[in-house]
Formats: sequence, C-alpha cells, structure tokens
Amino acid sequence: MADVTRTGVSIEPGLLEKFDRFIAKRGYKNRSEALRDLIRESLITEDIEQNRPVAATLSMIYDHHRHDLSNKLNQIQHHSHENVLAATHVHLDHDNCLEVVILKGRSGDVKQLADHMLSMRGVKHGKLVITSTGRGL
Amino acid sequence: MADVTRTGVSIEPGLLEKFDRFIAKRGYKNRSEALRDLIRESLITEDIEQNRPVAATLSMIYDHHRHDLSNKLNQIQHHSHENVLAATHVHLDHDNCLEVVILKGRSGDVKQLADHMLSMRGVKHGKLVITSTGRGL
Amino acid sequence: MADVTRTGVSIEPGLLEKFDRFIAKRGYKNRSEALRDLIRESLITEDIEQNRPVAATLSMIYDHHRHDLSNKLNQIQHHSHENVLAATHVHLDHDNCLEVVILKGRSGDVKQLADHMLSMRGVKHGKLVITSTGRGL
Amino acid sequence: MADVTRTGVSIEPGLLEKFDRFIAKRGYKNRSEALRDLIRESLITEDIEQNRPVAATLSMIYDHHRHDLSNKLNQIQHHSHENVLAATHVHLDHDNCLEVVILKGRSGDVKQLADHMLSMRGVKHGKLVITSTGRGL
Repeated sequence: MADVTRTGVSIEPGLLEKFDRFIAKRGYKNRSEALRDLIRESLITEDIEQNRPVAATLSMIYDHHRHDLSNKLNQIQHHSHENVLAATHVHLDHDNCLEVVILKGRSGDVKQLADHMLSMRGVKHGKLVITSTGRGL
Repeated sequence: MADVTRTGVSIEPGLLEKFDRFIAKRGYKNRSEALRDLIRESLITEDIEQNRPVAATLSMIYDHHRHDLSNKLNQIQHHSHENVLAATHVHLDHDNCLEVVILKGRSGDVKQLADHMLSMRGVKHGKLVITSTGRGL
Repeated sequence: MADVTRTGVSIEPGLLEKFDRFIAKRGYKNRSEALRDLIRESLITEDIEQNRPVAATLSMIYDHHRHDLSNKLNQIQHHSHENVLAATHVHLDHDNCLEVVILKGRSGDVKQLADHMLSMRGVKHGKLVITSTGRGL
Repeated sequence: MADVTRTGVSIEPGLLEKFDRFIAKRGYKNRSEALRDLIRESLITEDIEQNRPVAATLSMIYDHHRHDLSNKLNQIQHHSHENVLAATHVHLDHDNCLEVVILKGRSGDVKQLADHMLSMRGVKHGKLVITSTGRGL
C-alpha cells in the first residue's frame, strides 16, 4: 500500500466505540483495515450482480463410493477448463469427500457450471462462494 | 447528529473511487453516511448472534381462503403479545394476502415465534428480517 | 388445497429421520408441508433473479428527531405510489422508529426504491425482504 | 444408495410443475435428488447454529507483494493445524492470489479461525462457507 489517500468520516462517538469493540473481537489491528474490508465487501456484491469477471470457490461434499461420480465431476471440470483453475480433494472420513474447485470467469458462467456439478446425484451438499479477482480492490 | 467525531481512514485511491461510484448509484449523498451504514450493518449481525434485544419484521404470504388460518395466526400473536408490536395485512389478489408482523425481543425468542407461524399449513412463504432496536446506533 | 397430487420421493432412511426431527422442532405438523415450503423458497429465489413481479417488505430504523426525515420518506413513497401498498410505523423508544413499507412490483424496481430510502441520512439501518406475490405457489 | 425409503408428498399440481421446470434448468435429472438436496441444505443450517462438527472452506484474496502476509497466514494455519486440513493457492494475476483453506471442527472454532485470517492487513476479501462433514446426510 505505497499509495494511500486519507479521507475523513463523521461518526457519532457511541457508534464508533461500539464498532471499535466489535472489530477488536474480530481481530482487526486498526479501524482503516476494517472499513476497507466493509467497502470491498459491498463492491463485490456489485460485481456479481453485473456479471463481471469473478473468482469463485465451489465446495462439494460427496460419497466417493458413489459409482463413477468423481469421474464425472472430473470430466465436467475438464470440459470447462477455461473456467476451472484448480481442485483440491480432502478425505473427510471413510465415505465422505470434500472437493473444492476454484473457478474464474463471468459470474453467470461460474454459477451455471456450479449448478451443473451440484445437481449431480451423489453430491450431498455444496456451496458456491463468489469473490473478486482482486483487481482494483 | 449534534455530536459527531471525525475520524480518518487510509484507503487506496482506486478503491475509494470505485466506492464513490457505487454509493452514488445507490443514492447516497456523501461518503460518511454510506460508511456509517456499513458499520451499523456489521454491528447488527453481532446483536443477532448474541441473542440481544432486536426489532424484527416477519413477512408472510398466505391464502386467506385457507380455513381458519388468519384466526390461528391472530391467536398466536395475541399469545405472544409482549413480543408482537403490530401487524399489517395487505390483500395482494383474490386469494393471496401478505401479512407483516412487527416483533421486538431477544433474537432467540423472536426467531422461535416466527418459526411457529411460518410452519403453519397454508403459509406459503415467509421471511424474518432482524434489525436493531436503534439504541446506540 | 382441494386439489393435490401425490408424488413419491426416494430418500435414505437416516436422512429422513434427521429431517423429521428438524421439522418437528420448527413446529411443522407434517412432512409434506415442510417440503412444500422448501420448494416454494427455491422458486422465489428464481423470481427475484428474473425480475418478475414480487411483493416485498422494507424495514427501516430511524431517529424521528432527525429534521424532516419522515416527511421525505413519505414524499418518496407517494412519488412511487404504484409500488407502495402500505406503511406501518412503530415507536420503539423515545428516539427510534421502525417503519415498515410494503412494496409490490418487478424485483428491480422494488430494489431501486428501497435503495433510495435506505441511503437517506438518518436512516440507521434497513433491510429489504423480497417474497412472492403468492401466485402459482 | 443401496438402502432407500420411499415417502409420499402431497403437493398442488401447479406448484409441482413450476418446481419441475426450475430443477430441469438447474440440471437435475430427477425430483427426488432435488428434494434431497433441499432437505440436506436445511439440516446443515441446523448444524451450524448448534456448534456441531462441520467442514468449511475459507476463500481469501490477497496481494502477495504484501510484506510477509503469506508467511503469517501460514503460521496461523500451522498453529491451528488440528482444524486445517489443506490449503490451495492460485495466482490470479501479477498481484493477486486466491488462497483456499479447508477447515474442519466445531462451527464456532472454525468461524473464529476464519475471522482471525480475514482481519489481517492485506487480505482484501474473504468468505467462509460452512458445509457438512457428510455424516448422516
């Protein structure tokens, strides 16, 4: 952060005190960092709504005994290789795996690809998290 | 706001520009107001998790032809009158009503009362929104 | 519900048991009602994304001492009277009001109108809940 | 799924039709799979609220030029090694990385560990997704 501006915010003293206690509990070292995080969070909502380029993480729980499922998930990911950056696989217990797929692309494409995998039989649960590509944040 | 403090925030110029465009689109007149809203929003999440006193709004869609439903909803609300402040009823079309119930109390109690009404047969859809009592915000 | 179909669902016995315990806690009298609610919830998400007609509830906390705010909120609502069905006002304490505005229209219009009111100085917190018009649910 | 029960659901024909169109668009091959997914989703919300064991994925965007940040994130993860299963690192562009950390443990512990990393200076954005360990789903 070689290059920062300093801007002033008017705020009621009671509200500021409550916020300082809140961010200390969350582990923030200073107020500016916490405020920048709130700002970035609000901007990402906008990126998603506007179908802009995003990075995303799809987490899926499935039973690896399910015939051919990991194979099919693999094929889908290869087919959309331009949107799939990486996949990590974790063995949670004897039956269950957690597979985490990192995606990049327009928010609409990323959602569609995630829906495709989540709707497969044997995928017990999954969640897509859309975040930013980091550009301009 | 007779009484305000002025605090400084360090922020990358590019991020600040993006935020200014974003809040202008949302209708904000100035940056401080937008930042205060982000701060208040983060504090309310905390109130809910900690089972503190909150205000809340329960919106329910139901078919008023459904035998005795509005009667039962009414009884439940009277039974919990210490948590129910008001109810507004709107006729959406020939069949469907929207009933909005304003609630106050600990977040846990408010959630339980909402679950009770939402689980009733004939309530097609509903959502509970928890906000603040406004104190200290 | 004069007219219902009966459809079968295949489900692992352990999962069904867990679900039955869960819905009992939520107050559901039977499984069909709980499943219909899950189905309706998923359909409403679709209505919102597709800019279809929706009903919505905007809950706002504000300080009524704030000069002219309730007046301005009133004017905005009159200006958009085709989207505003009703408003309920509750006095939470000496300073704070909760105003709940019931809206109807395309999800995009409803969001914009809500943003306009939420961005006003003096509105401490607010939340928009979008639900269905009830048609076809 | 060697072992399944068949249960009946009563549902209005119009609602069922809408649901069938909805799930076809999402890519589901059959109604049972879609309903099981809705059921699992509702159960996971319960696991999180009750501080039960969960699996989770933390996605963070940060600038790897930021002095020592990846080092500090690494230390935090090692310190909580009993909750950290794996981490994947992706280079989004010249400046920005996406790091995805897979976590396991009680939902409260997992949230606290995520807050700790998200509050660090240089972490631009992040999101925690809590899912299930897959047991009993």
